[in-house]
This record gives sequence, C-alpha cells and structure tokens, in this order.
Amino acid sequence: MQYRGVPGHEFAGRVVESQNTSLRDKRVVGEINAGCGRCATCSAGLARHCPDRTVLGILGRDGAFAELLRLPDANLIPIPDSMPDDVAVFVEPIAAAYEIFDQVHLARNQTIVVIGDGRLGAIVALVLKGEKCLPLVAGHHREKLARLANLGLATAEESSVRDKFDVVIDCSGSGSGFRRAVELVRPRGKIILKSTAAAAAEIDLAPIVVNEIAVIGSRCGRFQPALDALTAGKIDPRPLIDGAFALNDGIVAFEAAKNPLNFKILLKAT
Amino acid sequence: MQYRGVPGHEFAGRVVESQNTSLRDKRVVGEINAGCGRCATCSAGLARHCPDRTVLGILGRDGAFAELLRLPDANLIPIPDSMPDDVAVFVEPIAAAYEIFDQVHLARNQTIVVIGDGRLGAIVALVLKGEKCLPLVAGHHREKLARLANLGLATAEESSVRDKFDVVIDCSGSGSGFRRAVELVRPRGKIILKSTAAAAAEIDLAPIVVNEIAVIGSRCGRFQPALDALTAGKIDPRPLIDGAFALNDGIVAFEAAKNPLNFKILLKAT
Repeated sequence: MQYRGVPGHEFAGRVVESQNTSLRDKRVVGEINAGCGRCATCSAGLARHCPDRTVLGILGRDGAFAELLRLPDANLIPIPDSMPDDVAVFVEPIAAAYEIFDQVHLARNQTIVVIGDGRLGAIVALVLKGEKCLPLVAGHHREKLARLANLGLATAEESSVRDKFDVVIDCSGSGSGFRRAVELVRPRGKIILKSTAAAAAEIDLAPIVVNEIAVIGSRCGRFQPALDALTAGKIDPRPLIDGAFALNDGIVAFEAAKNPLNFKILLKAT
Repeated sequence: MQYRGVPGHEFAGRVVESQNTSLRDKRVVGEINAGCGRCATCSAGLARHCPDRTVLGILGRDGAFAELLRLPDANLIPIPDSMPDDVAVFVEPIAAAYEIFDQVHLARNQTIVVIGDGRLGAIVALVLKGEKCLPLVAGHHREKLARLANLGLATAEESSVRDKFDVVIDCSGSGSGFRRAVELVRPRGKIILKSTAAAAAEIDLAPIVVNEIAVIGSRCGRFQPALDALTAGKIDPRPLIDGAFALNDGIVAFEAAKNPLNFKILLKAT
C-alpha cells in the first residue's frame, strides 16, 4: 500500500474519548477498515472493501504502535472484562482467519494443508483446529513446527509433502508458496490465498484451468466470530507470544519480531 | 500437454464400430476425456480430472482431424437427426462454456465481461446470452467485435472499458488478459479463467488477496446442457463458421484458422 505513518493494526485498548458515551472507558478491539459509509460497496455491507476506506496502520490512518489511535465509533467492539489484553490483541488476525469460513465451505472431512509456519500460518492453523477442521501445517522451520506440534497441530517439512489436498491455504508470503499450493491441491480443489506480502512472481495459470482450481483471496474478517471463539476458549493464541516490550523499546521489539523463530511480539503502550 | 499425435477434439461423427450394438451407425458427439474408471477421482464422478485420463487429440489419444477416431462407448452421446453436423461440432466448446454454470452461480442481474473476442470468447458470450446473462465482450479486433455485435452481443474495445464487473471471464489466452481481469473485477468478484494457452506470466497476487477475488479455472464441461441448449435453439453457433475444408485440404484449413479475423474453421473427413 506504500503506506507511511504509524504502523500497527492488531490492538486492544481503552476508549478515552468518544461522542458515544456508552463507549467511554470501555476496553475494546477495533475493526481496522473504515469505509466511507456512503458508497455502493459500503451499502452492500462490504465496508472492508470500500474504495475510499482508510485502514488502521496500513492505508491513510495512523496505527496502533502508539499511545493513542483514532477509529470511528462503529469500528469499536467492547471485549469482556475476563479477556486479557494478550488474548484480545489476537482478535484481528483470528478474525482474518475466520474470514475463510465466510468465503468457502470447509467440511471437517476435507483434507487441508496450511503452507507456512509463520505467525499467519500458525493462527490460521489454530483457528482451523478450533473448528475441528484439522489441517497439516507445512513449513521450513523445524523449531517452529515443533512448537506447533506441541499445540496439537499436525506438521511436516514442506518439501516432504506429497499428498494432494482438498484445500490448500497459502500463508507463505512468497510466490514460491503459491506454486507449491498449485502442486498440492487436488483437481477441483481450493487454494486460499492469505499472504499479501508476495511480490509479483512468474506464475503459470494453465494448471489452474486444467485442474479447475478455485483460488480465493482472503484478507480481513468480521470480528464477532473471533471474539466468540476466544471467549469460548476454542482457541488460545498465547503460546504464540514470544515477548512483550514497552513502546519505548519498539526498536528492540522489531528486532525480536524479525527473528524468524519468533511467532508474535507484543508492544505495550502503557 | 506436450502432445504429439493427431489433433482435433471438437467433432461430430457416425459410429462405424462398437460392441454396443445400439450405438452402431448412430450420429454422435463424444466427451473428450476418458478416465480410467477405477480411481477415486473417477468414482467421484470426475473422470474429466482422472490423473490417468486420455484426452482426445490432447493427451495420449489420437484426435478428430482424421477419417476415424476411437473413444470408449461411454463417451459417445447420440445426437438428434435434426441437428446438422455444423451445429453438433460445437457441442464440445459449448459444453466447456456451460461448465461455468456448473462451477459458479451466475445471476442475471450480475455484470459480466468476457475478455477476448476470439472463438473461445465468442462461444462463451453466446452461451451466456442464451442463458440471459448478458455479457459485455471486450476485445481488440474491430471486425470481430462488429460481427459479435451483429449477433446481439454488447461489445467494446477492451482498452476503453473502465467499469468494475461482478464477473470477469478471461478468454484472452494471454497473461496480460489475466492482469486486465484483475483490474476489471470488483472487490469480492469472480474471475473465470477459460484460457489454457497462456504461458507463465509475471503476476502480482496481492490484489487478489486485498480485494478477496475468487479466481476459478474452468476447462471442459458436461455435454448434456450443451446438447439441450442447441436442440432448444437457445444458441446458434453457425454464424461463427468462416469456412469448411476437406481433410485433404487440412493445410489450407489451418492457414484459414490462423487468420485472426476468422472465428471457426471446420474440417470434413468425408
């Protein structure tokens, strides 16, 4: 998005100012896309795709790596007192994982592989497991695969995977991940694209046509299913946390987040 | 498919030999994919995707540009006496166009653009029109667009199209067609990929993810809907025929087929 500004779009916080008095002082999470509220896309309930949207920390709106941030009242969702910050901060990425269920029908007897053992792949896999759609996580990092196996996930070194799957979820963030997805999906199967990080890559579309694959891009999701799943204890994302730093130690936090062995680093503004 | 052998997969013919006596001497068309009949894919009714399939004139099975061809009895579908050969020969590509309806829900109030004014785009557009899903055909060949307009289709020079569409059907046969499809589809819209001809191309998948596009590969289809539509007169493909040559004049026929202004050239074996 060629974004410049304060980054950060996964947060939990407390409302310090709002015209909606019932929101004041509430602990909240926040839908990161703010639509114009007037266009056809917004009217169709797809504000997340409004052509004039701002997106927290991503597009035209300063983000959550700060003491204060601004979002429209309508974007804020109060969270239960019983939900700790270090759980609530996962609502956004877990909502993005639940988006898959809003887009495609996943049956529990389907075979599913998640490509990528990074933070995105880990969260998607935990959500699938929480919904009893047991995936295989295929990755390159032995240590991370071992940690995910400890969380009850089936894992495999990616290059060793030979089966064909009903559903392949590409969380690799690379063009090679997509090529691997095409190899691993069965004819008439589905590839869910979760990575926006990939640059343009040399891609052969012919196998998509010959094997009649459906490739479905998937970005942000509704917050409610994620809040419900966390409240019900279907998912516990906290084992993915590898450190928490004060905002003043942001540089150190970024260094920790860059370490490919770490899943998730938190920043605390207060 | 790196195929070597007799090409040709769109045909109408007469059965001269079969163990099934009821087929003998019948005029038929033929499903071009012959599955093994034993694997899980075939058992699931997806013989068109059998990993050990042969495909007439495309993969491991000599095709229809010949006096005689061989297909399993199960692939042969008798056609009505009233259906001329020059209509029946379109059953295969029309079935491939109907495959779109088997894969995605197309509503008559959706906006649809077909990219490509070649034979594939023309047939897909005629099938959509036959089903009252009125598409815009976007292409580069003024003469062909004029001919398609004469058949009652809405047409436009591709580079002039600025709208966003619910459904984009890429019949361009080029990587640039896919990039154009990504530009022309609305968020949460669908791209149907009908071209297998495209080579690998530099493709940026990020817009697919950000806009949550569904890209659906689409190849061959069931013959029955195509036969039914032709029998009912919903579609008349004959205006697309630009010439018919004897098999002995095959070289001339291929020259005519190469002319980008021609839609469809027929070969007659007898």
